[in-house]
Amino acid sequence: MTFTWRLKKAIEEKNNPTVLGLDPKPEYVPDFLIEAGMSNAEKVLAFNRHLIDAAKDLVPAIKPQLAYYEALGPEGIDVFYETIRYAKKMDLLVIVDGKRNDIGSTADQYATAYLKDSGFASFADALTVNPFLGIDGIKPFLDAAVEHDKGLFVLVRTSNPSAGDLLDLKLDDGRIFYEAVADLVAAWGSAYVGDDGYSPLGAVIGATWPEQATALRERLASTFVLVPGYGAQGGKADGAALLFDKKGGGAIVNASRSLMLAYQKEGATSLDAFREATIRALEAMRDDLNQALARAGKTR
Amino acid sequence: MTFTWRLKKAIEEKNNPTVLGLDPKPEYVPDFLIEAGMSNAEKVLAFNRHLIDAAKDLVPAIKPQLAYYEALGPEGIDVFYETIRYAKKMDLLVIVDGKRNDIGSTADQYATAYLKDSGFASFADALTVNPFLGIDGIKPFLDAAVEHDKGLFVLVRTSNPSAGDLLDLKLDDGRIFYEAVADLVAAWGSAYVGDDGYSPLGAVIGATWPEQATALRERLASTFVLVPGYGAQGGKADGAALLFDKKGGGAIVNASRSLMLAYQKEGATSLDAFREATIRALEAMRDDLNQALARAGKTR
Repeated sequence: MTFTWRLKKAIEEKNNPTVLGLDPKPEYVPDFLIEAGMSNAEKVLAFNRHLIDAAKDLVPAIKPQLAYYEALGPEGIDVFYETIRYAKKMDLLVIVDGKRNDIGSTADQYATAYLKDSGFASFADALTVNPFLGIDGIKPFLDAAVEHDKGLFVLVRTSNPSAGDLLDLKLDDGRIFYEAVADLVAAWGSAYVGDDGYSPLGAVIGATWPEQATALRERLASTFVLVPGYGAQGGKADGAALLFDKKGGGAIVNASRSLMLAYQKEGATSLDAFREATIRALEAMRDDLNQALARAGKTR
Repeated sequence: MTFTWRLKKAIEEKNNPTVLGLDPKPEYVPDFLIEAGMSNAEKVLAFNRHLIDAAKDLVPAIKPQLAYYEALGPEGIDVFYETIRYAKKMDLLVIVDGKRNDIGSTADQYATAYLKDSGFASFADALTVNPFLGIDGIKPFLDAAVEHDKGLFVLVRTSNPSAGDLLDLKLDDGRIFYEAVADLVAAWGSAYVGDDGYSPLGAVIGATWPEQATALRERLASTFVLVPGYGAQGGKADGAALLFDKKGGGAIVNASRSLMLAYQKEGATSLDAFREATIRALEAMRDDLNQALARAGKTR
């Protein structure tokens, strides 16, 4: 069962194209989740588990962002893999956000860490990668994904304000640089398109660029799109909806801070209130996305 | 004391612009370094320590490649930081090769992991980063580098065969994409040029592209260059020499496999033979680079 097939099925079952981003900082963890003597990494693990408990019936996938775990040192990496194991026990898909990139021999080592069936990495389902080095920095990831039924999301247009510094440079053939990146991603993945119409080589396109979304979606007909930037970064549901295909599939939208910190917005002071606030934020995002898809005439 | 100042001084003291890449795989570790019951990560740590012991009087710096440690799971990250601590005890500079990249808030977490004065990260001197996301993905690294006297090397032209897939795209203003990347790196670093003439924002340019090296060097007058691709990847000393400035400074050349595995080439079967083979390979690379610099009229 390919990654995109599993992802499509999970989105349909939960009726929700949301991925819960787990980008935890120790200072995000509320007092009522902290036990005496906990290290920062242990606090983060407790936080993640409670977020997953709240989200497990509502979202198809989680997306831990490696940087937040690396910032906690070696113990943070333990917590990263522990979080993945916990999410998999709850039948959630796991997209590792690492934006890894390197020459072929080194990319193969990253694939070992996050995509191959090694003991600690065997439970992740997909990884984000950066295409700067061209196909021989992508191929080891793609080979591992094909062999182990995993997925990849290649950066095409990121959600941050300065994404255009490089990506908006105009090429002499009339394309803009990010369009050329999209064309390469489509070409690199074309030999691996599965029965569900998608290749394991997905794309990352921010919800923050609605004016470019429709044309990008057309360039990437067989590409599943991971959409960051919704929520705290300012991306709206109607912009994200442009990155779905005509049937309302082929994309999943991430939010991290707006979901992780829903408990703060509601002033929750107990685990029950934390759980309820998180569920309300997840339901609100689900409904917001599904309503935007309906407005766009894209119904699953 | 800025990073580039420390690096320049160390290169001059050792009379060697070589950085020893530590990209270890468990299968690289010779039997005579392995003790009963060692895990793969422990084998790699023993290997690294013996390589550092052999290299410490000959090279100014080491460059551990994170992917190889991540591939060993959480224990590999312990070994990564343990390797850094050991190298610093031997007065070597440490350039972490991670090619990290993300939006600003996440890039700041990577900066915490590798550049800020956290307990585990306080000993690394520099980090490689990928510029795909533009300035707001670079700025948190740059701020951390300026505050803590650390350095960065931004990918400009990588050493791998397919580097040109994206980097050789022609722009409508006549430049090639990698030239535009170089111009941005120079511009981003320009406000931070120190008394030694270099900004903390260096560049990565492969030794495998001699035909582009001279023009790139001219675009990057205040930029220290990290040069991968020498040795196993096919880059030659005369090509690398083009990336040094006119006085034979401003660049450092990495080799990994050709140095780590020198013991195999000589068929070493003991620790003494391992050490001698490693030292001979290090001396040969040093002399090769210094002779190429002399031929190019670039003498320190």
